[in-house]
Amino acid sequence: MNTLQFLKSKIRVIPDFPKEGILFQDITTLLKDSEALNKVADALYEKYKDKNITQVVCIESRGFILGGILAYKLGAGFVPIRKKGKLPADTYITTYQLEYGEDSIELHEGALSEEDKVLLHDDLLATGGTTLAAIDLLKQSGVSNIEICFLMEISELEGRKNIPSEYEVFTLIK
Amino acid sequence: MNTLQFLKSKIRVIPDFPKEGILFQDITTLLKDSEALNKVADALYEKYKDKNITQVVCIESRGFILGGILAYKLGAGFVPIRKKGKLPADTYITTYQLEYGEDSIELHEGALSEEDKVLLHDDLLATGGTTLAAIDLLKQSGVSNIEICFLMEISELEGRKNIPSEYEVFTLIK
Repeated sequence: MNTLQFLKSKIRVIPDFPKEGILFQDITTLLKDSEALNKVADALYEKYKDKNITQVVCIESRGFILGGILAYKLGAGFVPIRKKGKLPADTYITTYQLEYGEDSIELHEGALSEEDKVLLHDDLLATGGTTLAAIDLLKQSGVSNIEICFLMEISELEGRKNIPSEYEVFTLIK
Repeated sequence: MNTLQFLKSKIRVIPDFPKEGILFQDITTLLKDSEALNKVADALYEKYKDKNITQVVCIESRGFILGGILAYKLGAGFVPIRKKGKLPADTYITTYQLEYGEDSIELHEGALSEEDKVLLHDDLLATGGTTLAAIDLLKQSGVSNIEICFLMEISELEGRKNIPSEYEVFTLIK
């Protein structure tokens, strides 16, 4: 079994969550396996270690887990993108469509600067809606140097097509 | 300036968030500083590196950030405690009082076992209410070997007094 097969074997599929017909990809069974957690962190680090990343920007809340590890390993800072109302200081805000309804996310003003090279991270690439909203927040911050990575991608949803081709998108598990 | 003073200097205080009269301790300014993030992670790691921690259990969502780094560095697994309705499989659940209202948190059944040595982590010790609820979830899981750590503690709220003395509680910033 190679590393990718090993990591895939650690993901648990939960039918009908959060609603009927959805096959939820549960990564908690991967994260609690110390060997799998180690392999995931090292693989993502290897991908970005020579890219001079200054800030890892992570989407609440599952994006915080591996994003924190990546920031630490890369010697970068950690910057959270959070749901509306959670960040205490002045923020940029953007609203986007979800599969069921809409949502808003925020990023602190002043958290990033034009000089930053940002690695945007979330655990899962589905339709790409949240990612596009996060890119909008990064642009509002004046950031133009952006790489994007996910732990996993649901290829059938073709979210990758919705992300402008100027951004390099990397997913570890497909 | 020693390390503790350096770390304290990175925390931003926001008045009247989330409501009037509260002095919110904003750790995002610490997390985005790569040197501070590094120092925090290393200091917490030093405290627990010889304790044979098998799982770091982290409280959503700010607890995920340093908790993930700690799990990785300690060679342990990462287990999330999440707000009600977020975990997809069968869970233990507990309800607790907040300063304003009540809340429920959950932990996956089967995520932990009696053999685990758990490091429970959250970013902030305030009144201790969430910590007590998390301990309840750990007990429901059969875990009895528990250490507890926070990034910071609001000493004036005396939350430490509410945590049973059988648990060793460590906070990096007071």
